[in-house]
Amino acid sequence: MLVVRNIGQLATPRNGAQVVPYGIETIPHAHVLIEGDRIISFGVGDAPERTAECETLDAGGGCVVPGLVDCHTHTVFAGSRENEFVKRIQGKSYAQVAEEGGGIRNTVNAVRQASLDELVGLTLPRLKRMLANGVTTVEIKSGYGLSLDDEIKMLEAVRRLKELQPIELVGTYLAAHAVPEEYTHKRSAYVDLVCSEELMGRVAREGLAEFCDVFTERTAFGVEESRRVLLAAKEHGLRAKLHADQITQIGASRLAAEVRAISADHLETIDAGGITALKEAGVIAVLLPGCSWFLGVAQASAREIIDAGLPVAIGTDYNPGSSMVESLPLCMSIACTQMRMTPAEALVGVTTNAAMAIGRGSRVGRIAEGMQADLVILDVENYAQWSYHPGRNCVRAVIKKGRVVVNNSTT
Amino acid sequence: MLVVRNIGQLATPRNGAQVVPYGIETIPHAHVLIEGDRIISFGVGDAPERTAECETLDAGGGCVVPGLVDCHTHTVFAGSRENEFVKRIQGKSYAQVAEEGGGIRNTVNAVRQASLDELVGLTLPRLKRMLANGVTTVEIKSGYGLSLDDEIKMLEAVRRLKELQPIELVGTYLAAHAVPEEYTHKRSAYVDLVCSEELMGRVAREGLAEFCDVFTERTAFGVEESRRVLLAAKEHGLRAKLHADQITQIGASRLAAEVRAISADHLETIDAGGITALKEAGVIAVLLPGCSWFLGVAQASAREIIDAGLPVAIGTDYNPGSSMVESLPLCMSIACTQMRMTPAEALVGVTTNAAMAIGRGSRVGRIAEGMQADLVILDVENYAQWSYHPGRNCVRAVIKKGRVVVNNSTT
Repeated sequence: MLVVRNIGQLATPRNGAQVVPYGIETIPHAHVLIEGDRIISFGVGDAPERTAECETLDAGGGCVVPGLVDCHTHTVFAGSRENEFVKRIQGKSYAQVAEEGGGIRNTVNAVRQASLDELVGLTLPRLKRMLANGVTTVEIKSGYGLSLDDEIKMLEAVRRLKELQPIELVGTYLAAHAVPEEYTHKRSAYVDLVCSEELMGRVAREGLAEFCDVFTERTAFGVEESRRVLLAAKEHGLRAKLHADQITQIGASRLAAEVRAISADHLETIDAGGITALKEAGVIAVLLPGCSWFLGVAQASAREIIDAGLPVAIGTDYNPGSSMVESLPLCMSIACTQMRMTPAEALVGVTTNAAMAIGRGSRVGRIAEGMQADLVILDVENYAQWSYHPGRNCVRAVIKKGRVVVNNSTT
Repeated sequence: MLVVRNIGQLATPRNGAQVVPYGIETIPHAHVLIEGDRIISFGVGDAPERTAECETLDAGGGCVVPGLVDCHTHTVFAGSRENEFVKRIQGKSYAQVAEEGGGIRNTVNAVRQASLDELVGLTLPRLKRMLANGVTTVEIKSGYGLSLDDEIKMLEAVRRLKELQPIELVGTYLAAHAVPEEYTHKRSAYVDLVCSEELMGRVAREGLAEFCDVFTERTAFGVEESRRVLLAAKEHGLRAKLHADQITQIGASRLAAEVRAISADHLETIDAGGITALKEAGVIAVLLPGCSWFLGVAQASAREIIDAGLPVAIGTDYNPGSSMVESLPLCMSIACTQMRMTPAEALVGVTTNAAMAIGRGSRVGRIAEGMQADLVILDVENYAQWSYHPGRNCVRAVIKKGRVVVNNSTT
């Protein structure tokens, strides 16, 4: 058994099912008792007597929150695109940058050239830094392979990485991220491949992914193509996610509702009808503050979405083109300062709502009896101070499945 | 002697005097040779033979840049104002927050109640984190004391902190930050105190500050009052700085030009006439991207200011009310993504131009023969990648005055 004691403030979403209103329960002077990989109790004051023989972690009066969940990332990639970053600052459009050899295809070329071992080696330090920021569960998408072998290679990298480090990883199949160059003049053949037994079927059979995502956008896959991919995925037991309403409004949110997606992500251009559709279908709205911020464009209307009663999750969208932001705590701060989300809404967005966006709401994202013991111990007094300190790593220690995996409290 | 070898890219502003255009010189496969606290040479390839008996620091193929200079901060403070952060997100104006007991006065109360030892103890970990981000020189303002004893106490804290940690600190006298509550109905008596022999005279005589700053703003000190303070400061050998044109346009930049201030800081509302005035008077424009970002308001027009030929420096404005951002690298990223400054302009802004904004341009802020040996070794391949990685600490090691003061390369 492990007891976390001397907690100045324990802060957790109240209830995984009731995601609106965004309630954070706080307990001052608290403790958490852990047995194996589960929380067995928590409450005010020091732990009960039987904990005398427990291993103890002193929170030093800091705040303790659930381990963070990053529910939308592209963390497996190769190459670096700072040159495009500079070109965009100098005024070139994303389309111009793409014409000059930039864009997703740049990363696709780098990923295709990388071996499985190289992809694993490039991703490990990224995950180590994410863990140091308090992130204990991460969703990772394929989508830079765009061929049978390379999509499998990316998801195989995710599977290997599960064994090599403490973060719990969730694979998402995103072959429908872009039409690869060699299929430019035969789009439907690429959609065939995406939906094929040899690729989608194998991903499902081998358990390489739990979800299937599509970049539904004028420049990527239209609503008809997206529907075809997501319905095929459903047949294979892969639940739908969508990159929806990011740049243009082509009805992607409505499609998300229609196919009963678990989440609709981005939503920078969502309209009132899209919000209503998502709400009625019970789809989680995943907002990606780091992406619009990194691109210097307008954020999704978080207040409108929240005030309409939709549960909002927050992810990093970590990727080398549009969001080189691997810090989920920084995204909480961006949500607060740029989208007028409160620190409570931001914390719910990176814990229980993010867990629900990847089908883990009943196991992670809250501090409650029987939940998995994923905890972050902070060196600040209350959870609001975390969002209030942008760019500072406030993490003192991290517990994953009952095991202390980061501990800075002795340094 | 110390040699830094195996540098993948050495990146430094070209020339301290020529701040426009924003040229960064890069040398691949470089080394730097240090004797005592000075750079004695640098160049391509491995160091010359006589370095056989030198102490060696392996840069691991990373990028090396000059130690960063944070030229505008309020790092000495007490108390925390996350409650105001939440209230502003919920839609309250700064004025409403102030009426409810928030604003600068909140921090003034906390600083007045803190002892000198407490202020030192609160500030030390902040400076330690700033150093870990590659910052080797920091300007710190008074301005939360607003009484004879408390202003002296703040600057005394800065003096003590110089001895307690490696960052070089520069004190700025900012008693004219706000009119304290007890002087609300006798403003001119407070300006008298600010300019008095017993306060301003003592600050100058005891070398507690090098600069005198004024918050020139409709809600703080008008142009007439500011002029009076800054001319008195000049008599005492304290060079002028101004918080200019932040919220309203009352001619603060023109005053900065008139009194030949070393820098005019903020400039969110500067107009064309103000830009011309600063340029003709040779005043450095200090922009504070973290502040407007933290407040969720419009940034200064960096492009207009740069394109007009003004040298631009970047500071954090680290303070508990309007910029709880202690990471200067994050401010570089904000400058790139939100103000369309290039990574080169951002790096010049936190090195040589920032050094010039605090009168140290001939000693720090560049890698050149005879300059002080303040260096940052990064774990990225080139300087552009630093701004391109927001929220990630890319610092592998820090050298201050020839001494290795941060070294993460072994962990």
